[in-house]
Amino acid sequence: MSRAVAGPEIERLIQLLARVPGLGPRSARRAALQLIKKREQLMSPLAGAMQEVLGKISTCRVCGNLDVRDPCSVCTDATRDPTLLIVVADVADLWALERAGALNARYHVLGGTLSPLDGIGPDDLNIPALIARAQDEAVGEVLLALGATVDGQTTAHYITELLRESGVKVTRLAHGVPVGGELDYLDEGTLSAAIRSRTSL
Amino acid sequence: MSRAVAGPEIERLIQLLARVPGLGPRSARRAALQLIKKREQLMSPLAGAMQEVLGKISTCRVCGNLDVRDPCSVCTDATRDPTLLIVVADVADLWALERAGALNARYHVLGGTLSPLDGIGPDDLNIPALIARAQDEAVGEVLLALGATVDGQTTAHYITELLRESGVKVTRLAHGVPVGGELDYLDEGTLSAAIRSRTSL
Ligand SMILES: [Zn+2]
Ligand SMILES: [Zn+2]
Repeated sequence: MSRAVAGPEIERLIQLLARVPGLGPRSARRAALQLIKKREQLMSPLAGAMQEVLGKISTCRVCGNLDVRDPCSVCTDATRDPTLLIVVADVADLWALERAGALNARYHVLGGTLSPLDGIGPDDLNIPALIARAQDEAVGEVLLALGATVDGQTTAHYITELLRESGVKVTRLAHGVPVGGELDYLDEGTLSAAIRSRTSL
Repeated sequence: MSRAVAGPEIERLIQLLARVPGLGPRSARRAALQLIKKREQLMSPLAGAMQEVLGKISTCRVCGNLDVRDPCSVCTDATRDPTLLIVVADVADLWALERAGALNARYHVLGGTLSPLDGIGPDDLNIPALIARAQDEAVGEVLLALGATVDGQTTAHYITELLRESGVKVTRLAHGVPVGGELDYLDEGTLSAAIRSRTSL
């Protein structure tokens, strides 16, 4: 825009909103105006919720999830099955699996997948803690819920080899996951079916 | 979601994000996670920008625009042509016309259009102030930039009648505006063409 239709504070709000996933430059402008119009009912509570999360968020020391407490809400949920440990690449995958609601288990977030091309090796991922957790006698199964990408499968193979001597059962998601697809974009039904049909490695 | 994957503070952030135009429930969850991951680079500045706007925003006493100063950035912009006054229904339309960048004029925001069905009459709109501003001898033309809807045209007709005795030239946007369409959704080219081809009433 060549001229300022509003002050720099509003232009800055628009620019920051445009960086939120799901909003582009044009919808950011529309979102900013609606936030301004509904400032008491929406923008003020939203800014407050952000400040509240900002003040409390941390990475769970046990599983790598992001939450407002450490250990996180998942790790401290006593109703979850302690025998099943689900390994995911990213917190987004943990959230997606919880949306599917197919399992009531614990998680372990790797923080990525092995990627020789991007220079991401085992030391860059949260793998040593996973091996330690898998040794816990309460754990009977490690489900590798990684994407059906080359990097995801490389990572699954690597972890399977590391866990082979421990005797823990290692499974992967069924081939309901589209080849080349990211977990986070799948619908709940596909994710649930992939969990139900998981196979041994 | 049946179980909490994260604390109530994060669930509340997701629920509020879902009410932002452009984001639905699913993209709100994705947006929340990205905001949390990029909390230093994005969520913290965004929350700060919202608080800054919240503390300063007001409705311009002259034109009805929303800005962090009163009178607003448009009304205090000395480079704008004082002879042309553009009448819009909503602040969103003012912003849309500014995006088009076709004119460097002043605005007047009505705050809606006449709508007998919705019980919105002349007293509910910012019309008396418009009539007063139009009497200013500096104003040579009042451009009614209202949507090509029944309510928009009813409003244009009503204002044209009120201004008839004042002798000021009253124009409307050319019929480049799609019938039944809202100004705020038009692309810049259409808006610019409609402004260039505006016709006398
Ligand atoms: Zn945890
Ligand atoms: Zn103003």
